[in-house]
Amino acid sequence: MKADSEIFPTTYHFLKSAFVIEGQFKASSQVIDWLKEQNERVKISIKKIRFDQLDQWSIHSQKGNIQHKTGKFFTIDGIHVKTSWGNVPEWDQPIINQPEIGYLGFITKKFEGILHFLTQAKIEPGNVNHVQLSPTLQATRSNYTQVHRGKKPLYIEYFQRAKPHNILLDQIQSEQGARFLKKRNRNIIINVEDDIPVYDNFLWLTLGQIKDLMQVDNIVNMDTRTVISGIPFGSFDKEVVDFYSFLWAHRSKNCFGRFFLKSALTENGALHNIDEIISFLTKIKSTHDLEVTYVPLNQLKHWIFGEDMIFHEELKYFKVIAADIEIGNREVAKWSQPLVEPAQEGLCAFVVKEINGLLHFAVQAKLECGNYDIVEFAPTVQCLTGNYRHTQEGALPFLDYILNAKPRQIVFDTLQSEEGGRFFREQNRNMIVMADDEVPIGLPENYIWMTLHQLYIFLKFNNYLNIQARSLIAAVSFL
Amino acid sequence: MKADSEIFPTTYHFLKSAFVIEGQFKASSQVIDWLKEQNERVKISIKKIRFDQLDQWSIHSQKGNIQHKTGKFFTIDGIHVKTSWGNVPEWDQPIINQPEIGYLGFITKKFEGILHFLTQAKIEPGNVNHVQLSPTLQATRSNYTQVHRGKKPLYIEYFQRAKPHNILLDQIQSEQGARFLKKRNRNIIINVEDDIPVYDNFLWLTLGQIKDLMQVDNIVNMDTRTVISGIPFGSFDKEVVDFYSFLWAHRSKNCFGRFFLKSALTENGALHNIDEIISFLTKIKSTHDLEVTYVPLNQLKHWIFGEDMIFHEELKYFKVIAADIEIGNREVAKWSQPLVEPAQEGLCAFVVKEINGLLHFAVQAKLECGNYDIVEFAPTVQCLTGNYRHTQEGALPFLDYILNAKPRQIVFDTLQSEEGGRFFREQNRNMIVMADDEVPIGLPENYIWMTLHQLYIFLKFNNYLNIQARSLIAAVSFL
Repeated sequence: MKADSEIFPTTYHFLKSAFVIEGQFKASSQVIDWLKEQNERVKISIKKIRFDQLDQWSIHSQKGNIQHKTGKFFTIDGIHVKTSWGNVPEWDQPIINQPEIGYLGFITKKFEGILHFLTQAKIEPGNVNHVQLSPTLQATRSNYTQVHRGKKPLYIEYFQRAKPHNILLDQIQSEQGARFLKKRNRNIIINVEDDIPVYDNFLWLTLGQIKDLMQVDNIVNMDTRTVISGIPFGSFDKEVVDFYSFLWAHRSKNCFGRFFLKSALTENGALHNIDEIISFLTKIKSTHDLEVTYVPLNQLKHWIFGEDMIFHEELKYFKVIAADIEIGNREVAKWSQPLVEPAQEGLCAFVVKEINGLLHFAVQAKLECGNYDIVEFAPTVQCLTGNYRHTQEGALPFLDYILNAKPRQIVFDTLQSEEGGRFFREQNRNMIVMADDEVPIGLPENYIWMTLHQLYIFLKFNNYLNIQARSLIAAVSFL
Repeated sequence: MKADSEIFPTTYHFLKSAFVIEGQFKASSQVIDWLKEQNERVKISIKKIRFDQLDQWSIHSQKGNIQHKTGKFFTIDGIHVKTSWGNVPEWDQPIINQPEIGYLGFITKKFEGILHFLTQAKIEPGNVNHVQLSPTLQATRSNYTQVHRGKKPLYIEYFQRAKPHNILLDQIQSEQGARFLKKRNRNIIINVEDDIPVYDNFLWLTLGQIKDLMQVDNIVNMDTRTVISGIPFGSFDKEVVDFYSFLWAHRSKNCFGRFFLKSALTENGALHNIDEIISFLTKIKSTHDLEVTYVPLNQLKHWIFGEDMIFHEELKYFKVIAADIEIGNREVAKWSQPLVEPAQEGLCAFVVKEINGLLHFAVQAKLECGNYDIVEFAPTVQCLTGNYRHTQEGALPFLDYILNAKPRQIVFDTLQSEEGGRFFREQNRNMIVMADDEVPIGLPENYIWMTLHQLYIFLKFNNYLNIQARSLIAAVSFL
């Protein structure tokens, strides 16, 4: 096993793990039962309260934002946004401000030569179904420096002690730019060779299993999805990939897996090269402004700061609420905090199309007010919080196309949760749709075709793909 | 020629141009004479004035900063900086704030199959020697949207009309993080095939010539250096590079060129792979904060806002001054503006060392208050504004080593100017020093070895290398 890891690159071990859906420990169907059990075993109570009932949180007299008395965790701020992008040149909104970079980390270990990921059945207050599969470690800096004086997060010491040769992936990636102000996390995967303790609620799964479980609604949490989305699978020559695909073909349960495999592994042959894609982005960043200034929450235009919620006067977008939370298996058992509650379910979808024999994704450059660097690559359709079903026909490119896709075009279609530590029961429909000949190669302005291999390159260099795009890429399966 | 550009990648045309020091138009020595001529021909007058004598500029009553009455161009702001990096946890300072992304662009064209760059003999008020070689186009957004109602910048339409297949390079890169707040420019190189007018003060030069001219003090301006630093030269197999190097060896005038060539073109064999370097940076970004808040200029701690300058009470770092400027060949002939004047000359130096048969650069991760993303890759030694000659021995890693380098170790040693549009007669010593066996492979914390090929990869993905590192990389020559 040691010799194995010396000879083969990390990407190859990821690739093998992505093909294994029978892990050494639990079958996927058993995992779902196991999560149900966890769900039943744990006591949970979430009660909406008034802002003035929040324990340890208050409205800052000068800044007019909501903050924790330690100044840590996060704040709910009001912002005024000005931009030359799109049709709305300025607006006000509340936003979550959490400038610290936290850990989202997996420990991996090889069993019978196959990389397994140590997942955790973790409760978050806002989760639709309470318990979801999360990374080994999910910790804000406030968490692991123990501002809340709770228990030290389990396994943190493995990450803090990791040496370069044990680190398989280590990226800084963004969160929702419409909800978080420049929030980023450290997405990290480390490898251990020795035995380690497997605590209650933890379970080793292969990458193939995690991806398989994404076929079920609201099982794999957002933090797991962002970390696994960044996993690259290496580069191979065209004929090598073709032969892989040929060898695998007769075993594959659907025909899409082979297309994704080819698109993921093939270095050359894309419609645009990396430099052209960077130029596409450079042009957009150079010609659009994004200016964000703070405004007290009670002075936001078109938003009402009520005693138990902050909401848009047309009840659009989202609300900020306050909640009392009591949970059994978290580091701190009882606390209160603000949460963000969506106005309705959203839709994130990629249109994919075979071009020059390689599957390409129609990627959108999208400006969101909380973005670290003006625009990020987003799914073809992303209307997270808008009332997309009532949007004027044709107003949003590809929206009608996605909603009217024929069953044989649908590669992926599930509900996935947003981060339950900040969002109250928010789930979005995640779809991947195979284009037919109707979809031309020419795309609207601010859209560009990219292969999976190219998306993995941008993922590596941080802050290029938004979390909605990453969530969909996490769902890509070769099986 | 058309067939040529279809068959060979852009990087190959850059590579060939870097080897040509006899351009089709003027020899390098003639270029220096030509610049001298330009210098003599032009009328220039720069007079220091009081801030209240500035035309169109004033001190904002609320913000306490210096700004143009249009709100465009740039402002001089006061900031308070807090960081967990280094030994100084907080400080105040003035800073230049220019949020718009401007153009720094070259037009290139092939003559006799060799790519030539259209350079401009351009005066900037702050330049030590007034006229320097600048890119074809150097324009802030205020410039090209003509806020100052001057002439439209020459050649701008070529850049605005450029199609993807004419764009050879297109990157967003930072400026001095200690002096500019998150300033970035669009570094762009385009190609034309048809004849274009060559206006007065413009001249076609090869890349090899531009690099050759960097051997002379203060000839090639900062904007030229940043654009050419981003030029990649492609990837080749080890034995191909070795044979290039073998073929070239007997013609090369010094022995360093071959080392740089190998380090630039070889894809594999570096001490650390790209993922390890990204992880090195991720760790630093995740564990260090940088918090910048605005403070009125007259309330900056340890800075004095006099009637004709803003200066540090110990006369360290830099001063902000006001100047009346009259110049013959600029878009606007007469204006006044604030400028930044350094307290003394600085030093930027790379230590390079052959490791595993490939030249590696000792790169420093450096936090500067104006950085877009906390830290950037910087030269081994960068003490731009500190009084480095009087620094305590050993206080700054490699400083003594650089200053005591033996002549045979010195690859490059010249004075290079900072941007004369903002800085008043600022020049820094730029050095590249070949390490002997004394320099171990183990480096201090926050330093890492990288090959040129790896540096070019990070350059491509924007905002990774700071301008001081880029200025030195621009000087790297294969000859």
